[in-house]
Amino acid sequence: MTFDELTSPLKRADAQRNRAKILDAARAAFAIAGAQISMAEISRRADVGMATLYRNFPGRRELLEALYTDEVDAICDAANGFEAETPGVAFVNWLNRFYLFLNSKRHVGSELLKHSDDSNRFFSVNRQRVLAASRPLFAAAQSSEEVREDVTLEQVLDLVAAVAHIPGEPQYIQPILQTVIDGLLPLPR
Amino acid sequence: MTFDELTSPLKRADAQRNRAKILDAARAAFAIAGAQISMAEISRRADVGMATLYRNFPGRRELLEALYTDEVDAICDAANGFEAETPGVAFVNWLNRFYLFLNSKRHVGSELLKHSDDSNRFFSVNRQRVLAASRPLFAAAQSSEEVREDVTLEQVLDLVAAVAHIPGEPQYIQPILQTVIDGLLPLPR
Repeated sequence: MTFDELTSPLKRADAQRNRAKILDAARAAFAIAGAQISMAEISRRADVGMATLYRNFPGRRELLEALYTDEVDAICDAANGFEAETPGVAFVNWLNRFYLFLNSKRHVGSELLKHSDDSNRFFSVNRQRVLAASRPLFAAAQSSEEVREDVTLEQVLDLVAAVAHIPGEPQYIQPILQTVIDGLLPLPR
Repeated sequence: MTFDELTSPLKRADAQRNRAKILDAARAAFAIAGAQISMAEISRRADVGMATLYRNFPGRRELLEALYTDEVDAICDAANGFEAETPGVAFVNWLNRFYLFLNSKRHVGSELLKHSDDSNRFFSVNRQRVLAASRPLFAAAQSSEEVREDVTLEQVLDLVAAVAHIPGEPQYIQPILQTVIDGLLPLPR
């Protein structure tokens, strides 16, 4: 953002709109597996000039990181807002959403791994954010004896992430995810 | 095996012993993550000459494929021999063994992916062998209502394979695997 944009409300609104347009176009572009999307293509799809694109995101990596961070923000927010009959239902609802998040961000994530030398640190920071945001939900579900006591939140999220890496159509994956979720119930049932 | 070895029982026994020594040495070498093991090193560890090594395995890929096939043989044999109180227990015991197999063959498998252009076909053939060998156990466990009806054997093996890819020490992975196995129980429990 330039000094001009910071000082003029109208220009600031414009800048925010441009940023959102770029992120929307990039999100749609990267939703398709193996898409080799150039910055020029994103500029075209977002209907903004290359100068505007590069002013917002100096490179492909910055754009990918912004996309990824946006999705992590959304999944963290979701952990705060879940209303459900019981803490166990709230946690399982959030877990299903976490699975969808993992699936949707897969291409962005693997693109990022190619582009960023310190991507490990980036992923690790975001993992910590998701853990912190969902820990109260998980703790409540264990306290109400709706989730088994012998697993940690880290283990549950690793398991769901592992399921998200299984190749296959949603109708193939769904019973697998349900098996995992049913396995979280405390024993004896 | 040369014509000489085929015609002389003593030489044949020798040849089999050498092959076993090579496979044992290679198995031990590849059990360690990221080991960069050369053919020369395997020849040294197996205490056989390079000529003998190359007569048995023309290249690294052939050696890796033989190692992998040996392990698949063992897991298929195990599916035939399982005795247990119930079909469900027999299947779960075999599934635990399948998990150990996946874990132990991981390094060989990822080495193979680097060395073989048609590794996909190789893995696919071996997957079909494991599915065929374990299908009777799985069918019996479903028939006796010890395993849920809404999953297929393919889905169960994919799920266990996904767990085997989660990084971590055995004590971290064990509760995750148990969650999956408990999830296989039919509902309501």
